[in-house]
Amino acid sequence: MATAWSEKMLQLLRKMNNFHSPGSSRARCLRFEVADQQVGWILPQMASILKNFPDVFDPPHNGGISLSLSLDSHAKRSEVFDGVLQTLRRNDTLTCLKGWRDERYDIMARYCDTPLMSMERSATCLFGVRRYGVHINGYRRCDDGQLRMWLARRSATKETYPGLLDNLAAGGLAAGMSIGDTAVKECWEEACIPAAIAGMARPVSTVSYTYEDEEGVFPESQFVFDLELPADFQPSVGDGEVQEFYFLPMDEVKELLVSDDFKPNCALVVLDFLIRHSCIDPDTEPYYQEFVTGLHQTL
Amino acid sequence: MATAWSEKMLQLLRKMNNFHSPGSSRARCLRFEVADQQVGWILPQMASILKNFPDVFDPPHNGGISLSLSLDSHAKRSEVFDGVLQTLRRNDTLTCLKGWRDERYDIMARYCDTPLMSMERSATCLFGVRRYGVHINGYRRCDDGQLRMWLARRSATKETYPGLLDNLAAGGLAAGMSIGDTAVKECWEEACIPAAIAGMARPVSTVSYTYEDEEGVFPESQFVFDLELPADFQPSVGDGEVQEFYFLPMDEVKELLVSDDFKPNCALVVLDFLIRHSCIDPDTEPYYQEFVTGLHQTL
Repeated sequence: MATAWSEKMLQLLRKMNNFHSPGSSRARCLRFEVADQQVGWILPQMASILKNFPDVFDPPHNGGISLSLSLDSHAKRSEVFDGVLQTLRRNDTLTCLKGWRDERYDIMARYCDTPLMSMERSATCLFGVRRYGVHINGYRRCDDGQLRMWLARRSATKETYPGLLDNLAAGGLAAGMSIGDTAVKECWEEACIPAAIAGMARPVSTVSYTYEDEEGVFPESQFVFDLELPADFQPSVGDGEVQEFYFLPMDEVKELLVSDDFKPNCALVVLDFLIRHSCIDPDTEPYYQEFVTGLHQTL
Repeated sequence: MATAWSEKMLQLLRKMNNFHSPGSSRARCLRFEVADQQVGWILPQMASILKNFPDVFDPPHNGGISLSLSLDSHAKRSEVFDGVLQTLRRNDTLTCLKGWRDERYDIMARYCDTPLMSMERSATCLFGVRRYGVHINGYRRCDDGQLRMWLARRSATKETYPGLLDNLAAGGLAAGMSIGDTAVKECWEEACIPAAIAGMARPVSTVSYTYEDEEGVFPESQFVFDLELPADFQPSVGDGEVQEFYFLPMDEVKELLVSDDFKPNCALVVLDFLIRHSCIDPDTEPYYQEFVTGLHQTL
């Protein structure tokens, strides 16, 4: 029998993958294509707006909208695209652009490909392009044999999800920095973990999901690291993105996951940890298989 | 840059998920429904054959074929269905039924649901119903710090994949036995691992994929266990399904995965192990994310 915890966790997974649900806007979305490759999804209302930029976007064709092929380099695409975004930002109709970050994301069909262009981070949901990040699970098996996990509480002044629980450290992958280096950098900036310790973080998984809300489509993939912290080390508040760290038994962490106190995608990263570390038993958790597949969705 | 190994591994993942590929028969398949729930997929050629059993299967409707709702219990459905299969078996037109096993699989929409009926194992691909199994990775971190893995070589007389490399132990989930008990049973039967040791196997993942071939559609989900074997213990040949065991460094295992010497779904289980145990680095493996998502596909 599914427990209340299982039902709530399944609900969270479905919410974080609501773009895959029957009745989502997926069927009405247009493929966003750059250099003949799909890099994202465009909602119908956004497609109408893009008609105002006929030099930049070709008219919808075969269920897709293509960035004009005359823009034939990373530099040209990025520059012209930024011009469009600046116009939209001035028009002040798109909520997500109010969160303009001046932080550029690389755009490519697949993570391993050469970037086709870059795009302001706050605009990525308008074009449904995949965003990549790094999350680090901090944990330790204590002398009593019990597994405990480090959690961070986000600063009350963070723009997104203020005050919610988070993984030990996490951050977006910025252009030009490796996945491993990003993990080490985030550990230092957010939790004052020196590179000598953070470098022991081991890559173990990715967590991928796609959700949509009134602002757009959010396909995201997080590269997941496990970092067993030494018994004599404690993370501490770094750049002010975190207000406090906790070191909790897994049972307590598990309960917190389904509270409204957890940043949703961080809860998924912890669920992946719980499965990999055998904290969930397939014989007693009826949604075991759905948890695993729900953590690794593609478009 | 993707290495030859990466390309071969990606190719294997795609082959094992070819039902999801563009151009697969998925678009032409009909949903197989029991008690108003989809439990599988029926290929068009099979749909024609089922027309000969109008008392058992309703005519195709809205892209689905339903088992007659007048069959309103597990017992009735299983019995009548078995009658159909026996007829088809006598007609001798369906290759897969030549491998009749007298082994019943439970059929349900999801693993955690109450079974709706049972079906002869060799017929499951005709109805594209998901099959569940258990695979156990045997390994040990040696004194030199190096990770090594136990592999089995299947007996030359096995009906399927004779002589190929396999995980330490594996087997299908039979009706009425728990996942954990199945793992322990298979460890004993195939590798003479006593319950005291096999019971230390830890559930860590599922590996799910769907392939099709000329015989039918094969959605499969394997519950994956990791078992660190003690240094003074060696598995040995049990019921004759295995001819030999090897204890190999991970680099060697990795190379074997992409040789034609490995049973394909077992290679996927090892790929999942390689990722969870940080034997693959996301900064040097361009298909890292595709490997992870390819190992956890749903329909």
